[in-house]
Amino acid sequence: MQESKYDFGLVGLGVMGRNFILNVADNGFTAYGHDLDEEKVNALKEEGGDLQKVDASTEVNTFVQALSTPRKIMLLVPAGKIVDAVIEGLLPLLDKDDIIIDGGNSFFTDTDRRESYLQSKGIHFFGAGVSGGAKGARRGPSIMPGGSREAYKEVKPVFEAVAAKFKGEPCVAYLGPKSAGNYVKMVHNGIEYGLMQLTSEVYDFLHRAAGLSNDDLHDTFAQWNAGRLQSFLVEITAEIFKQQDDQGEGRLVDKILDKAKQKGTGKWTSQNAMDLGIPVPSIDIAVSMRELSALKEERLKADEIYSRPDIRKMDQETAVKIAEEALYFAFIITYAQGLHQLSEASDEYGYELELETIAKIWRAGCIIRAALLDDISRAYDAEKGLTNLLLAPAFVDKVKSTVESARALVSFAAGSGIPMPGLSNSLTYFDAYTSGRLPLNLIQAQRDHFGSHTYERIDMEGIFHTEWGA
Amino acid sequence: MQESKYDFGLVGLGVMGRNFILNVADNGFTAYGHDLDEEKVNALKEEGGDLQKVDASTEVNTFVQALSTPRKIMLLVPAGKIVDAVIEGLLPLLDKDDIIIDGGNSFFTDTDRRESYLQSKGIHFFGAGVSGGAKGARRGPSIMPGGSREAYKEVKPVFEAVAAKFKGEPCVAYLGPKSAGNYVKMVHNGIEYGLMQLTSEVYDFLHRAAGLSNDDLHDTFAQWNAGRLQSFLVEITAEIFKQQDDQGEGRLVDKILDKAKQKGTGKWTSQNAMDLGIPVPSIDIAVSMRELSALKEERLKADEIYSRPDIRKMDQETAVKIAEEALYFAFIITYAQGLHQLSEASDEYGYELELETIAKIWRAGCIIRAALLDDISRAYDAEKGLTNLLLAPAFVDKVKSTVESARALVSFAAGSGIPMPGLSNSLTYFDAYTSGRLPLNLIQAQRDHFGSHTYERIDMEGIFHTEWGA
Repeated sequence: MQESKYDFGLVGLGVMGRNFILNVADNGFTAYGHDLDEEKVNALKEEGGDLQKVDASTEVNTFVQALSTPRKIMLLVPAGKIVDAVIEGLLPLLDKDDIIIDGGNSFFTDTDRRESYLQSKGIHFFGAGVSGGAKGARRGPSIMPGGSREAYKEVKPVFEAVAAKFKGEPCVAYLGPKSAGNYVKMVHNGIEYGLMQLTSEVYDFLHRAAGLSNDDLHDTFAQWNAGRLQSFLVEITAEIFKQQDDQGEGRLVDKILDKAKQKGTGKWTSQNAMDLGIPVPSIDIAVSMRELSALKEERLKADEIYSRPDIRKMDQETAVKIAEEALYFAFIITYAQGLHQLSEASDEYGYELELETIAKIWRAGCIIRAALLDDISRAYDAEKGLTNLLLAPAFVDKVKSTVESARALVSFAAGSGIPMPGLSNSLTYFDAYTSGRLPLNLIQAQRDHFGSHTYERIDMEGIFHTEWGA
Repeated sequence: MQESKYDFGLVGLGVMGRNFILNVADNGFTAYGHDLDEEKVNALKEEGGDLQKVDASTEVNTFVQALSTPRKIMLLVPAGKIVDAVIEGLLPLLDKDDIIIDGGNSFFTDTDRRESYLQSKGIHFFGAGVSGGAKGARRGPSIMPGGSREAYKEVKPVFEAVAAKFKGEPCVAYLGPKSAGNYVKMVHNGIEYGLMQLTSEVYDFLHRAAGLSNDDLHDTFAQWNAGRLQSFLVEITAEIFKQQDDQGEGRLVDKILDKAKQKGTGKWTSQNAMDLGIPVPSIDIAVSMRELSALKEERLKADEIYSRPDIRKMDQETAVKIAEEALYFAFIITYAQGLHQLSEASDEYGYELELETIAKIWRAGCIIRAALLDDISRAYDAEKGLTNLLLAPAFVDKVKSTVESARALVSFAAGSGIPMPGLSNSLTYFDAYTSGRLPLNLIQAQRDHFGSHTYERIDMEGIFHTEWGA
């Protein structure tokens, strides 16, 4: 092994990759980058400065030869076929026991497939979700690795050094075998969709029903961010309301088109939750609302056809108080749903997830980081195997003391025609989850009536069928 | 061709298959059944009576030889690997241009795969959704065939004879190429999930908030079934409330366990709608609620922990009026979502669907048959290419005159802790769909802030990115 070999390799020098590699170099490791795009390679070299610690090449061979063995090569390239193509390009150049880490948002079954394939070639492969956006990659992301525990040990020093720190603890931990890392990142993103939808609804309410200006909204979200709602999303929402339009007068937020895009991880979370049979309606509706937002032309037509009720006005102080409580309530419900899904996925896919660890590494660095996650990690620490956060003693008072505002806000929104589907799904989920008895006995009766699908009874064991109307 | 050969073959002599074959025989065709289970074969022979018109065998060879060519063989077996196994068993015995029809709830991509495979063997294959349950199969189902138009012509006389009739028109029509038939049936079932969830919520409300007894509920649903809510599901719901418990005192509905099962078609509808980018939250939530109902043990625990608000009481007359209007509103929204999905699927998968035809063949025979479908078929007839029912002039007044009751009921439910997620998702969908401006500009701002995902503007063309907080 030559002295000059580099500790860590990274393929894909977009903004995330470049920032991640600079972060690695900042933390005492040498790192080598690779991208086919010469501009990106040069951008890294320039920004990297000290070439003893960071270098890059457009040549995959040069890249591979520059790394110390076992090579640790992280991919930060778009999910899908590109990942397979990059792997095929690397494979002939690698040695036994080299390690490839997929840091992108790959679908978890793709990760399982790639792991098996590369295992047969003597190469370790694992997925590691990375959250924190461009700034997180540079200053400290939350990293969610899964796969081979042995292979992870080789990468652990680098990941622990570059990860965000929460009170000194690195926001990275080995999460479980196979695609556990990608799966956890997928659900992280599903929760992210839910929280973003909820903040957008509260903004709409405060603006339209209580007349808060962008300055008022900034102050409100900034104030919330100093309290129990403290979180990255609330923090940047406060910032957003202050941003001046760089193309004209006024605030930028008012000029942005209300068509929200998506890249798939939220959708995958919802679709897979349905496969697992775990209800995550606060996430489902966030996916639906992004879809609905894209139907702008239809919405404009429908808006012309249907008049809307007058929005009752609410005084600002009351509105802000209700909104804070309702948002806190709905944030809890959304985390509860996502973690419930992880709990079930752990059983179904053999991930052996520790939810307290997941909550811990989400406390800093990632997009859904929030003060709440410290409480959540303690709740799961206190009760291993807790299926749903709503059953945790430490959360009962938090929920009880805020649910009335959620009720008030959903009622208000329904009466005023302000769509708050994320909040109302969080409330109806809570009301249904806490109902020992639901009216789905009728659904079982209907199914047995028209399809002889049978039913169970509350008062005796067995499977029953009735000739209805006979 | 021998005189004694049979017109129509059917594999799978469960209750649906047996009833379907008897229906075929009732309508002037001879039919031959096949099942490996001798009991089922004998049951059909007994019930069939006149052996000149109906016969059956456990021997696949005997079965195939009994049919006139081109053979028309319908499969009514459980979706999945069994369909492939049955096809493989038939294949060596068939002649070119024989026709296999899959009448089960096969996933549409499986149908496409099977069609290609069998085409290469010279066999016609197509999927035909059949709805109506056991009684429908016997007395007249709604049939949704897709696939090869030429092959369908061979089967058309039988299908038109056995199908349910709406004012003399058979509830069957060629719907489109490939898996169009299975796809339409899948969405039919998704709508069915939505409508069932809604009826269960209204039952819960009338029972708990207005104190309606089972007799009152029977009367109410029976009365509704004589009006604009007239539909199979409302009709059987009325019947259900009258059914005496055959194992003890009282009404059966009160003894049925509130854990609703599902067989997958509702889930597939939701999952595929997400792939298409079409919001169907009234269906999504129905799937989620079945999942949630299954978590009975957790719900009982949560019920003990969380107290519930006192349910405000509402006088019966008001409650019934509000419930009727809200249910009518939410039924319209649910059909609108399912049809919207079909409209998009038609483009995406090349199904060339005519939505007016689909609404027409749903007017009788199937589980979601309803007076509303006659209005719906006319709305799509009046405007070919209508994407969403809410944009149809004929529906504007129906919606406007009932939405206020949906608002009142959602508000009431939120305040009382009665979970009405189907109704509230129908309302928030309406409020969002009819909003020319949604607050998802904030979501685009957040995405650009943390992930440089860019945004569009309302006042100029282009793709923009901002260095937020800079």
